[in-house]
Amino acid sequence: MLTLYDNLSSGNGYKVRLLLSQLGREFRLVRKDTVKGETRTPEFLAINPNGRIPVLVFDDGRKLAESDAILFYLAEGTPFLSMDRFARAETLQWMFFEQYSHEPYIAVARFWVHVLGKGEEWRDKLAEKQERGYQALAVMEKHLASRMYFVDNHYGIADIALYAYTHVAHEGEFDLAPYHNVRAWLARVAHQPGHVTIDKADFG
Amino acid sequence: MLTLYDNLSSGNGYKVRLLLSQLGREFRLVRKDTVKGETRTPEFLAINPNGRIPVLVFDDGRKLAESDAILFYLAEGTPFLSMDRFARAETLQWMFFEQYSHEPYIAVARFWVHVLGKGEEWRDKLAEKQERGYQALAVMEKHLASRMYFVDNHYGIADIALYAYTHVAHEGEFDLAPYHNVRAWLARVAHQPGHVTIDKADFG
Repeated sequence: MLTLYDNLSSGNGYKVRLLLSQLGREFRLVRKDTVKGETRTPEFLAINPNGRIPVLVFDDGRKLAESDAILFYLAEGTPFLSMDRFARAETLQWMFFEQYSHEPYIAVARFWVHVLGKGEEWRDKLAEKQERGYQALAVMEKHLASRMYFVDNHYGIADIALYAYTHVAHEGEFDLAPYHNVRAWLARVAHQPGHVTIDKADFG
Repeated sequence: MLTLYDNLSSGNGYKVRLLLSQLGREFRLVRKDTVKGETRTPEFLAINPNGRIPVLVFDDGRKLAESDAILFYLAEGTPFLSMDRFARAETLQWMFFEQYSHEPYIAVARFWVHVLGKGEEWRDKLAEKQERGYQALAVMEKHLASRMYFVDNHYGIADIALYAYTHVAHEGEFDLAPYHNVRAWLARVAHQPGHVTIDKADFG
């Protein structure tokens, strides 16, 4: 059985939990508390030298890190990833957008406010993160003006990657009220068959 | 012919120039100066709403952004990307590592020092970037202890993605002297057939 090293509060980990659930694949969840340093122990660094969750470990011992690389691997040959070469590249484009232009602002703001409780103390640097986070949301809002989903009008791993931290952006004090297209898309994603919430902990 | 919107000083753009050269593909290079705001004009935002280079534009008008997504698209079916499902996922793992744990520190330090000339003025925040950049270099150094290249011991797009900013890390005041494996790998990459340097400007 697949083993997923993960932290329930992590949107990056949630991406993998959500896809595995929607694929109907059983897996063992091993929770690691990043705040307590459980991903910086020698034991964990032997699993991922970069000291981050999520990591997917296969029965034969192979390991795969980086949430969006794991999504791409798992989605291969399923309806969650197109077979079309250009649509696959667009899927990757949105996943790299997520990791470079979205997650470092929206996820980090949420981590500071929601996990560390530093929203007041770090007000100034939080404002910087929010400014960049709103830029990412504006890009998404524009793209979704004429589309149901991010790539090929078909729900897939680009949506899962972007949903993970967007749907909890309010926990980083983002106000999604003006982002009508983003909110409608969030609702569509949440109504997909097999959807699970970020706090679901009982797997396999 | 393919058109690449790019900035010569950008390592992200260089990844695409290097792969296109090694594939022997002609392309038209349209230079955009990010420092002068040329990627924030209405005209450029119509090409990439996220306001970043590189962007690859096809003859039929399709556009693809995000350097590592472009690499994956172009490398499909060539020796620069394995056909093996797990090796492809590992390739993506390293490319996401590059964009999340490497580029935001090593490329940004270089941009501040080498492009903006703010090395002295921003000494403290530069030190923060360097600390995280050295963590990324340490992960690479360890991985390369037993390998010639990042995935499958075969030169490919994971190497191109990581080479782009690592080979100019000294321009962000990184000292690669202790990173023997990284330096040996840089030399191997630089000796690949069809290699071009980051400042080559005459294409097609």
